[in-house]
Amino acid sequence: MFDLVAFDADDTLWHSENAYAKAQEAFKQLLAAYHDPAYVEQELYQTEIRNLPYYGYGIKSFTLSLIEAAIELSEGRISGAEIQRVINLGKEMLAAEVQLLKHAKDTVAQLAEQYPLMLITKGDFFHQETKIAQSGLRDYFQYIEIVNDKTRDVYAALLKKYQIAPSRFVMVGNSLRSDILPVVGLGGWAAHIPYSITWAHESAVLQEPESEQCFELEHIGLLPALLEQLVKS
Amino acid sequence: MFDLVAFDADDTLWHSENAYAKAQEAFKQLLAAYHDPAYVEQELYQTEIRNLPYYGYGIKSFTLSLIEAAIELSEGRISGAEIQRVINLGKEMLAAEVQLLKHAKDTVAQLAEQYPLMLITKGDFFHQETKIAQSGLRDYFQYIEIVNDKTRDVYAALLKKYQIAPSRFVMVGNSLRSDILPVVGLGGWAAHIPYSITWAHESAVLQEPESEQCFELEHIGLLPALLEQLVKS
Repeated sequence: MFDLVAFDADDTLWHSENAYAKAQEAFKQLLAAYHDPAYVEQELYQTEIRNLPYYGYGIKSFTLSLIEAAIELSEGRISGAEIQRVINLGKEMLAAEVQLLKHAKDTVAQLAEQYPLMLITKGDFFHQETKIAQSGLRDYFQYIEIVNDKTRDVYAALLKKYQIAPSRFVMVGNSLRSDILPVVGLGGWAAHIPYSITWAHESAVLQEPESEQCFELEHIGLLPALLEQLVKS
Repeated sequence: MFDLVAFDADDTLWHSENAYAKAQEAFKQLLAAYHDPAYVEQELYQTEIRNLPYYGYGIKSFTLSLIEAAIELSEGRISGAEIQRVINLGKEMLAAEVQLLKHAKDTVAQLAEQYPLMLITKGDFFHQETKIAQSGLRDYFQYIEIVNDKTRDVYAALLKKYQIAPSRFVMVGNSLRSDILPVVGLGGWAAHIPYSITWAHESAVLQEPESEQCFELEHIGLLPALLEQLVKS
């Protein structure tokens, strides 16, 4: 029934957003002398969104936005040493070990015996390659696609490239915006596995689609049973 | 005789290093109150090389290294407004229009009628995609590969992926380190077309290989005649 099972990576196979959240907490403390945390968070988010057309996604982009937001929020009074601390927050994120989500490895290993698997991830190419290599999951995936953004057009182009019908494609991921809605919109299947934290940009005003081809799972360990059930029905 | 003709992009098809050089000049002026330009340049280079394992190549990486070098060189005395100017240097580079090198378009268009062409470029994925789209050359290339680094192993993996024998592969590029030496080392053909400026990291202590499969051209417009001559001989 499925020709291809595709997985998002960040916050679907391994933890990612928790590192952003941790860095953001440190950033709010750093700027506590200038503004209250809620305002800092809001201004940082505006800076990130404004910078997306220049920088795209990923930790280097995030770091540059942190620096810019720090200058703005402090009206230029932030010190060189404090900016260096912001740079170091980014470097710590880049150097951090990949931490797989619970059940991720077993699930991927099990499904790799039944289906061709694809990894579809967006963000910084250099860092994604590093994380894929570190994850130990590389060899379970027949295809790896690192894309700039996960829009309906991008999924359509991937399905065309691999000559897969949407109705025989399932996407597994934590983000409604990037993993679920575009795929269901194309007529594909989707398993939505929410992560404990979602970046505002990924979650803003989105609801799970009311589709018979979209399922929500509590954790990735439940995926093989879902696919088995779908194949049988 | 050739199954695939591959091109580097930055400083082979379009200008790139001149924008880095221009930003570096502005950076040296910005730090003129602290150190002489030669010392600033040297420290910046050290910072870039030290940061490569974290950041990889590209303008975002360069911007982060500029900021870090500015803090170090000023011993933290650099102001927020000055750091913002550094950030803006990076953004201007990212937003700059792609400028094709002379003869690049005609040469690529002509060769696309005779050979399958591949673009092999390293650096920031997001920015490279933007430049490829802007260049107007997208449709001449049958394959596009954006890689993290251009080592012998990376070329070997690409040749394997596309099932091309090295002896039937030619690489065209400006960098001895990234475009020429690894390909000649694998037994492939190379056309070296030096650009007016080369980043120290790409040129350091390297010499053109003494190989009958390596040729130096003054400009890309001479490439079709070289390939024709090789096919005939």
